Parts: sequence; C-alpha cells; structure tokens
Amino acid sequence: MQHYVLISPPPIAYLITNGDIMDQRPFAIIAGVGAGTGAAVARRFAKQYPVALLARSPKFASELVSQIEADGGIAASFQANVSDEESMNLAFDAIKEKFGTKCAAAIFNASSRPFPKPFLWQSQDDLAYGLDISLTEFVPTLIFTGATASVKANAWMQPFTVSKHALRALSQTLSREFEPQGVHIAHVIIDGVIRMPLTRLLKLFSAWDAKLDPDAIAESYWHLHAQSLSSMTSEIAIRPFCETW
Amino acid sequence: MQHYVLISPPPIAYLITNGDIMDQRPFAIIAGVGAGTGAAVARRFAKQYPVALLARSPKFASELVSQIEADGGIAASFQANVSDEESMNLAFDAIKEKFGTKCAAAIFNASSRPFPKPFLWQSQDDLAYGLDISLTEFVPTLIFTGATASVKANAWMQPFTVSKHALRALSQTLSREFEPQGVHIAHVIIDGVIRMPLTRLLKLFSAWDAKLDPDAIAESYWHLHAQSLSSMTSEIAIRPFCETW
Amino acid sequence: MQHYVLISPPPIAYLITNGDIMDQRPFAIIAGVGAGTGAAVARRFAKQYPVALLARSPKFASELVSQIEADGGIAASFQANVSDEESMNLAFDAIKEKFGTKCAAAIFNASSRPFPKPFLWQSQDDLAYGLDISLTEFVPTLIFTGATASVKANAWMQPFTVSKHALRALSQTLSREFEPQGVHIAHVIIDGVIRMPLTRLLKLFSAWDAKLDPDAIAESYWHLHAQSLSSMTSEIAIRPFCETW
Amino acid sequence: MQHYVLISPPPIAYLITNGDIMDQRPFAIIAGVGAGTGAAVARRFAKQYPVALLARSPKFASELVSQIEADGGIAASFQANVSDEESMNLAFDAIKEKFGTKCAAAIFNASSRPFPKPFLWQSQDDLAYGLDISLTEFVPTLIFTGATASVKANAWMQPFTVSKHALRALSQTLSREFEPQGVHIAHVIIDGVIRMPLTRLLKLFSAWDAKLDPDAIAESYWHLHAQSLSSMTSEIAIRPFCETW
Repeated sequence: MQHYVLISPPPIAYLITNGDIMDQRPFAIIAGVGAGTGAAVARRFAKQYPVALLARSPKFASELVSQIEADGGIAASFQANVSDEESMNLAFDAIKEKFGTKCAAAIFNASSRPFPKPFLWQSQDDLAYGLDISLTEFVPTLIFTGATASVKANAWMQPFTVSKHALRALSQTLSREFEPQGVHIAHVIIDGVIRMPLTRLLKLFSAWDAKLDPDAIAESYWHLHAQSLSSMTSEIAIRPFCETW
Repeated sequence: MQHYVLISPPPIAYLITNGDIMDQRPFAIIAGVGAGTGAAVARRFAKQYPVALLARSPKFASELVSQIEADGGIAASFQANVSDEESMNLAFDAIKEKFGTKCAAAIFNASSRPFPKPFLWQSQDDLAYGLDISLTEFVPTLIFTGATASVKANAWMQPFTVSKHALRALSQTLSREFEPQGVHIAHVIIDGVIRMPLTRLLKLFSAWDAKLDPDAIAESYWHLHAQSLSSMTSEIAIRPFCETW
Repeated sequence: MQHYVLISPPPIAYLITNGDIMDQRPFAIIAGVGAGTGAAVARRFAKQYPVALLARSPKFASELVSQIEADGGIAASFQANVSDEESMNLAFDAIKEKFGTKCAAAIFNASSRPFPKPFLWQSQDDLAYGLDISLTEFVPTLIFTGATASVKANAWMQPFTVSKHALRALSQTLSREFEPQGVHIAHVIIDGVIRMPLTRLLKLFSAWDAKLDPDAIAESYWHLHAQSLSSMTSEIAIRPFCETW
Repeated sequence: MQHYVLISPPPIAYLITNGDIMDQRPFAIIAGVGAGTGAAVARRFAKQYPVALLARSPKFASELVSQIEADGGIAASFQANVSDEESMNLAFDAIKEKFGTKCAAAIFNASSRPFPKPFLWQSQDDLAYGLDISLTEFVPTLIFTGATASVKANAWMQPFTVSKHALRALSQTLSREFEPQGVHIAHVIIDGVIRMPLTRLLKLFSAWDAKLDPDAIAESYWHLHAQSLSSMTSEIAIRPFCETW
C-alpha cells in the first residue's frame, strides 16, 4: 500500500501517512527550503515539531538543520529531485524511517520562476507543467505558497502564471473535498521582494520595511496551522505595506 | 480641529486621534459588541490594551466590561447611536477623556442584517444606506467585518449585499491610500453561524465545530493587528471547516 | 399603484410598467445621455425602438432627439433631476403619456465622477451615496454601466469606487432575483477613454484606436439585449486593445 | 520556418500562419466540433468564412461539412489527435494546402470532461495535464471555451478545474501580451447544459429555455470576433436565465 502524496505543480512529493500511532511524535514537512520563506517557515514550525526539510541541493538545507539544532530544535534534510517520482519515494522512505508516519503539517513552498520572455520565444520545455499528483492520506494542515500570478496574468509570465493558477485551483478543489473531513488546506499569495542575502543589496534603493520579512510570513503560516477547525482561513495574501498591486 | 472618524456603512464613528503623546497608554476601540464576534474581539484585545466598547444599547456592553475587568483588563462602554453624528461626537469626547488620544486599533464590527425579502417588497427605508464618513487621522490598525455578501450577491439580500460590497470597496480604497503611510487596513469575511447563546440550540441539528468560534475569530483579528508592516494581509475569510460556499 | 423604478446610485429613475397591452409599441429608456456611451446607445436602440432619453440638462438630449429623428427614428427627451423623486415621477408620467407602458429595455448610464482627492479632504457631501430605489415591475432588459472601479479600488477614488461597487452588487442581486423570471440584467464595465469631442484633442497624444468607440460599445449593449433567455451574459468589460489593467 | 500554433490544455493545435497574401481568402479554424457549441460556432463562422474543422473522430465533422455545404458555405474537416504533435503537424499541412495561410479566427473548443471522482481514486493518468504549447504567429481573433470550473473549484472535479484554471490563465497572459499588437483573445465561460440530441431527453425534467442554445452561444462568439479593436471584451460568461451559480 502506497502512503505518498506527490504534489508537484512544479513537482514535489509529500509523505502523507498519518497512522494514528499515538506514541509517535508529530512532525512537519517543509518542501522547498531556500533562504527566504522556506527557511523561515522551517524555523517557525521547528519551535513545535521536528521538521523534515526537502531540497534539491542538500547544502543550504544542511546548514538550516544545524541552525535549527543549535536553537534546540530537531530537523533533518532530505535530498530529492521533486520531478522524479523514484527520488521522491526514496526520500519519503527515509522520512518515514527517521520521523515515523504522524505528519502534522506539510508546507509546499517549491516553485520555479522562469525568466520572463515573450510567448513566441518559449520552447516546448518552457511550457511543460507536470501536474502529477498521487496521494493516499492527508495531513491535518497543507499549505501552498502562491504568488500574485495565482490570480493575475501578466504578459511574458505565462509559464509561471499558468502553473500558479493551476496550483491555486488544486488548493481550492482539495480544500472543497478534504476540509469537510477536517483537513485545513490553505493557499498563501506572497507578493513582493523577500528579505534575503540576495535582496539585501536592494536595500540601497528602497525601504527595508518594503521587503517581506520571512519570519513574519512564517508567523502567518503558523497562524493558519493554529486556527481551529471551526474558524479556518483558506486564502491569504501577504504584501509589504507599500506594495502597489 | 476635529479628531473624529465616522465610518458608517451601516453607520458608526471612530475617534481616530492619535497624537504622539508618548506617555499615553494606547487603547483599542471595538464598535459593535454583540454576543458573538464583537465580544470575543474585545476580550482578545483587552489582553493587551484598554478597550473602549461602542454599542447601541448599553446593557450587554456593561456586562462585557465587568467580565473584562474580572479578568484583569480595563474596559469602558459608551452608548452611541451610530447613525447620529451628534451622538457619536459625544461618545468620542467621552472616550478621549477616559482613554486619551492614542488609539492603537479600531475594529468596525457593526452591521445590520435586514430580513431577506423580495426587492419589490422593500420600502425606501430598507434601501437607505448611509455612507457618511468623515475622518481626520488614522489608527495603526483598522479592521472591518464583512460577510460572504461582500463578494457574492444573492437574491433577496440586496440591502445587505449592497452595503457589504460598499464596505469592502471602502476598506480597499482606504487601504490603497493609507497603507503606504503605515496604516494596516483589513477586511474580514465571516462566513457561517457564530457560536452564541442564540445559536446554541442549533447544536441539536449540526456539529458544534460547524459553528464559528468567536474566540478563534478574535485570534485572527489579533494576528492581523500583530502583523508587521513588511508583511501584511488585507483580506481574509473565516469559515467553519464544513461550510460550503 | 406605483409604476416606477427608481434606481439611483447615483440616482436615476425608470418607469418599469410593462402592462401586456399588446397593441402598444415597445420602447427603450436611456438614462444618462451624454456625448459618449449614452448617445451611442440611444442611437443604436433607436434603430429598433422609440427611445425615451433622460437627462439632467435638456440641451444635449434635445439635439440627440433631432439627430435620431433625422435618421428616421423616434425619440423624446425628458428633463429630470434623478436625485429628486418628485422630479422623477413627473418625468415618468410624461414618458407613460408619450410612449405607453411597454418598456423593452432600460439602460442605466448615469454616473458621477468626482474629482479624485485624498480621503481626508472629502466633505460629508462627497460621501453621500443615495441608493434610494423603488420599483414595481421590471423591463425585459436592464443594463447598468459600470467602470473598472466596480471591481478594483484605487486610492483617492473612494466615493466613485464605493458607489460603483454598490451598483455592481445591486445589478448582481437583482440578476439573481429576477433572471429566473426572465429579466435580463447586465452590468457593463467600460474601461478607458471614450471618443468624444472632449477627448478628441487627446488624439494628438495617443492612437485613435486606443479610445473606446461609443458606437462599438452600443453594439455590445445591443448584443446583450438581443441574447436569448437561454444563453445570457450578465457581466462584460469593454476595453481598448491597448488598455493595461 | 514553422507556422504552427499548438494550444493544448487539453492539447490541440492551430495553424496560425497569417502571411499577408492579400489575394487569399481568410478562413476560420474550429477545434473541437462536437454536437453542441463547436458545431454551432462552425455554422455561424461559415456564414462569413470557409471553416476548417478539427476533430478527433472524422464522422461527426464530415456530417457537419455536408450541412454547411448544403447551406452554401465552405468547410473541410481534418482528423487530428490533438495530444500528438506529429498528427497536428500533418493536419495543419493539410489545412494550409486547402485554405492557405490567412486565418481570421481560431476557436479553441476542445475539452475533456473526466467523470468526477474523489482525489484519492485518481490515477496518475487522470492527473496528467499536457500544456504543451508552441506558436509562431497569431490570428486576429483567438477564443477559448472555458467553464465555471475556470473560476470556481468544486470537490472531485480537480483534473477538470485545474486544467480550466490553467486555460484561463493562458488566455489572460496571451491577451496581455498580444492585444497591444491588435490580437483579440477572449475566454468564454459556458455554464449550463447545452441543447443537444444527448440532452434532449432532459427536456422532460426541465424547461427547454433552461438549456443553453448553441446557436445563441455561437452568436456571442461571433459578436466577440466582430468587436472593433477599440472596444473589446476579453471575458464573458454565458448562462441560461435560470442557472443558479
């Protein structure tokens, strides 16, 4: 029997076995742990749960594991090529062995941001959106990271905007199906430049507050996870106070 | 010089003087303190701030003041007919005298819910929507309570839906104007039956979790207030897990 | 018995008596007949129906009547202060006497476009939105003219955007109530600069095609009116090909 | 040099060569010619243009060609497996040979409607959405057929709703890119049961007017094509008067 969730628009996979083995400690999975939102969300959920970090390249994720452990948390990183189902299955076998099967929350933060270019310049490869999904059981909380492109389609951004619209549709249709069963599925639009080493230079040209604070974003992800069944929010957008949209 | 905000769709008024008198203790204003959302939001904000409660009839608000004081908070209720500017001015003079001018958050939770009826049965009075607004300065956080009718128009609900659409438009246009100045303006859609003494009977017919927990709603209001300038949410909807919409 | 429709956000009034007196010739009412959309819609509907033109000042409407008559159509103009119910009643009495009671289509094109200004500069008068509506019977087609402000709220535009959101909500709630009875109610967002004598000068600075052709708009209004009951559209937006939004 | 448009969510391909060979007669391409919308749109456009009909199975398309020819029009059908690029290329070579390269309008009406089923019952194949697109030049008008699932996500409908959201995003991003170049790209939401031999039986249970008339739909497609550059509509929804949504 399979116990995997593959959610991959762009592709990623989740282990969604949540056997009710009550002596197991619940853990969280963060898929897509770059220097911005992913890392901050991992640190925030690590205050409460052991966290399994999924990343394409293990370097940054390993450093993050060290940071989290230095702060008294429990973390492990798992290398996975999310577009390769075999690689995903191996990663989830490893997660299961390490943390068990009681997943409390899964954050899907993976994304590809192709360089904008005119439609006629795009190759077939630019336009391949794998939406391969398989899943057996759900975690209590499942959060997807979207973008303004999830609801607005700009020129030249068509691969990104098509996949982000598709991801939001997926989030909503899953929400309609699984929320009556007690699963909290949320979609978060992140709109703005995120404060990261990479964007620090831009500080010269704009106010620091004008950049999204990843820790503040993570606090909102945690708030979504902490909402009670009776009073849930399924979509939020997060923007700096000065973002025009 | 006037220091009032009248925000009244249906009408209500806020004192929005926020003179930077640093030795004043910031306080919060909750307008519309019935047994559900308003009371819960008042209790939540009272954990941090003295709260000024605005209500049409002083009875429930007085009991709420006693509750909050019993829990160690500071509160005062102010009677006001929100459709009457004179009455509002008097109330705000009283608030200013009691709490000063450093308002940290204002929650606009007043609403009229006319009984649904066909358009042709409505009188002119059913259709009068006062949108009388005056304002001089803004508080750091201003939250409006909306409903699904803010974004969806059902038959027979036209007075309610027109005023709720108008309220959301107001929230958005204010947000576009004042967020760049650091004011957090948010619109919250509450969709579902709220757990209240009045709706307790309905427990017989539906799951308890299927009713919105006012304390959980209040926690989301507080989360909005607590968000940093860099990472703000201007619209959320809150629904029970089983609400179809 | 009253036979009037007052639809006034900003205020206007329609005669909506449609007694099934089969020997009467159906006519159309166009409310708000300025040099742009209103005039073009009037000319288009005059190809099929006698048209009653409602205007605040009779001068332009009278010239339009002459044009329509010169083209072989039937038209009459009626002066009315749409914010004054008495004035409206008089106008509709006159329309009834002139054209009877068989109204085939009513186009609500009246709008006020207050000069944009900051919220704090607005007086109470800027913020009074009369939504006084009374109505007894409906015409087969009722079309409202909206704007991008009907769905998007920009800073400084708050009186306009609040009333346009309210008008769209009204259109939708009426649509939900009356479409099952066979009434076609549509909302048209006009987004862009309209070709008019006033805007002709702007030709120097932008392509002529970049301005909305009122006759093309009128053709779309007519298409909405001509749609069959089985296959109706309740919302469209009309933009020049080069409009960014 | 390639002259093909492959637009395939679900996959289909268009020849979009529109060399300005002025002595060529412009023609239209209708992709997806079943008994409902596709056939009606083909008949409507055949009043003005020769039409190239693309279909998976040639039987219905051949009958439609006979009908159109009997009415004095010009039509030809082309078998194509729209998920197979090779098959598409062959079909477009044939179209080019038959009608030339001056395509005036392309209607993308192909769709798959998988039987609704719970997410956990879906196989990988249910979830494969090919969004393979290649394109060199655009036709003056390009219309996509959507559904309510383009903007609303219901439970169990996730393959359909994800692909319909993606299709609408594609339509919008293309619109933003190509409308400034004078290409009219529109998305039409068809919401309701279409009058077809298959749905005739349902007449017993509901009003005939409650079913979408394909000819009326086709008239709206034609209206979109006929709109002037200055005054275009990029999204409409078409519903029976009694459809609740």
